[in-house]
Amino acid sequence: MEPLDLYILGCGSANPMQRHQPASQVVSLRGKHFMIDCGEGTQTRLARRGLGMKRIGHIFISHTHGDHTLGLPGLICTMSLLGRTAQLHIHAPQELKTFLDISLQTFCPDLDFEVLFHSVDTTQHQIIFEDRSIEVWSLPLRHRVPCCGFLFREKTGQRHIRREMIDFYGIPTSQICNIKAGKDWTMPDGTVIPNERLTTPPSPSRSFAYCSDTTYLPRLAEMIQGVDLLFHETTFGKADELQTKWTYHSTAEQAAQIAVQANAKRLCIGHFSARIKDEEQLLHEAKAIFPNTILANEGLHISI
Amino acid sequence: MEPLDLYILGCGSANPMQRHQPASQVVSLRGKHFMIDCGEGTQTRLARRGLGMKRIGHIFISHTHGDHTLGLPGLICTMSLLGRTAQLHIHAPQELKTFLDISLQTFCPDLDFEVLFHSVDTTQHQIIFEDRSIEVWSLPLRHRVPCCGFLFREKTGQRHIRREMIDFYGIPTSQICNIKAGKDWTMPDGTVIPNERLTTPPSPSRSFAYCSDTTYLPRLAEMIQGVDLLFHETTFGKADELQTKWTYHSTAEQAAQIAVQANAKRLCIGHFSARIKDEEQLLHEAKAIFPNTILANEGLHISI
Repeated sequence: MEPLDLYILGCGSANPMQRHQPASQVVSLRGKHFMIDCGEGTQTRLARRGLGMKRIGHIFISHTHGDHTLGLPGLICTMSLLGRTAQLHIHAPQELKTFLDISLQTFCPDLDFEVLFHSVDTTQHQIIFEDRSIEVWSLPLRHRVPCCGFLFREKTGQRHIRREMIDFYGIPTSQICNIKAGKDWTMPDGTVIPNERLTTPPSPSRSFAYCSDTTYLPRLAEMIQGVDLLFHETTFGKADELQTKWTYHSTAEQAAQIAVQANAKRLCIGHFSARIKDEEQLLHEAKAIFPNTILANEGLHISI
Repeated sequence: MEPLDLYILGCGSANPMQRHQPASQVVSLRGKHFMIDCGEGTQTRLARRGLGMKRIGHIFISHTHGDHTLGLPGLICTMSLLGRTAQLHIHAPQELKTFLDISLQTFCPDLDFEVLFHSVDTTQHQIIFEDRSIEVWSLPLRHRVPCCGFLFREKTGQRHIRREMIDFYGIPTSQICNIKAGKDWTMPDGTVIPNERLTTPPSPSRSFAYCSDTTYLPRLAEMIQGVDLLFHETTFGKADELQTKWTYHSTAEQAAQIAVQANAKRLCIGHFSARIKDEEQLLHEAKAIFPNTILANEGLHISI
């Protein structure tokens, strides 16, 4: 099975601090890197992690707050400096477009590659991108500005050939593609061999959901049922629960509730407020509800 | 004498690297912090250095390249988050204005403080700001886009009172201000005591010149004659001298030549290209021409 990896580049919130950096993550599958959010300084952290920029073809921006977007102009300028020619796709709320256009005009008017902007309707739960191996769904969130999360769902692969059965029935190599795709096999005498006898089911498809920034939103759980890894923002702990009301953020307990309701396999919490002095306390609060929880940090790499 | 300090926050160049951060410096005098350039991530480095943001009233931007400006929107948003109400003055080439306006509209439309943009004519050597204690002069540079450096020159202070002479001539306290300002003293019998007998000269005024980004520009030397500290860009070393032709940057030797011609007291070199593997080599090249040279780094604090 191809590795599906998540790299956390930044898991702080808007107010800068020493421990954490603004939001950014990279989902990696089959040599492609999908970036989610791009806070200030993301390009430096990419370089430090040795992730490079060439493999990034699509960047998904959750909302137009500076701590999720202000690294974008610099990243694009650097891609240009490094001689990029491949298209770059930005999927973001429409509110970001003018800023992006003016930034490119101001700082890198002579790009040798196209930057294609795809406006994301943050009110809809729908596929906003897909290729042969993955689908990306928008997840409507509730924040102070239009905002959505993203669900990365690997496409179901092909069925696995049972080599011994192929040999037994003398099926020619030219037919393997059809068999993998689920077709039955008809013998020269007309006997039909059902596909289930020739193959085993495809590897289960894996999924990752990114939910930041948002208030506690129980309806999220339906959209991400059975997700393998849920990243859910935890800007505050129980002690600061009141802050979530007017900032439209979540507590560790609320993130854990979503993980429970969604039957998630794992939960990673982040987007920590600068006022949080002890993240272990947040972890403690989340684990009391959903034990399989970990804290995000800027060096974290999770194999999904 | 009040301390006049320089803090280097970033001394890398456009291509991000692990060792260095994009350009930013802070000049500190009498509790005021003047920021020069504001590359991506500057706000984080300010926080790490414990310099704070409240004392920053004026930001001087040399030119509209991302590695000198892209930290500005985030810095202003954070000032807002922290409850700033004081005006903020941005002195920058006109080319930056649209980007700044759109950034503020997009990311912090409800600022509780005024951001005042002052367009700097990068072709002129003139005073662009002054208050009671300092003058800031523009220094026309030659780069790929309109660009200027900045000369910070402390204003000459008042003369120092010779206490024993004041007592000797029985001069009343009410007259001390006039004496400090250079006035003579007339005795009741009409005898005039010249000011030189009552005072010693004011402390010498100190100066700092920031010259980045630029090709080798000998005419700079006249404008910064006798400067106490010169920061001059050294993007490349001798081995990469050809690169300076089309990138409009300088080598370590060229920076040192300017320091010699300007009769500078000290030289600090920075704005290192990512291709420089050994900065000591640049230091070596500069010192061969101007011995009192140091290498910039992100933790550097220089008392001028």
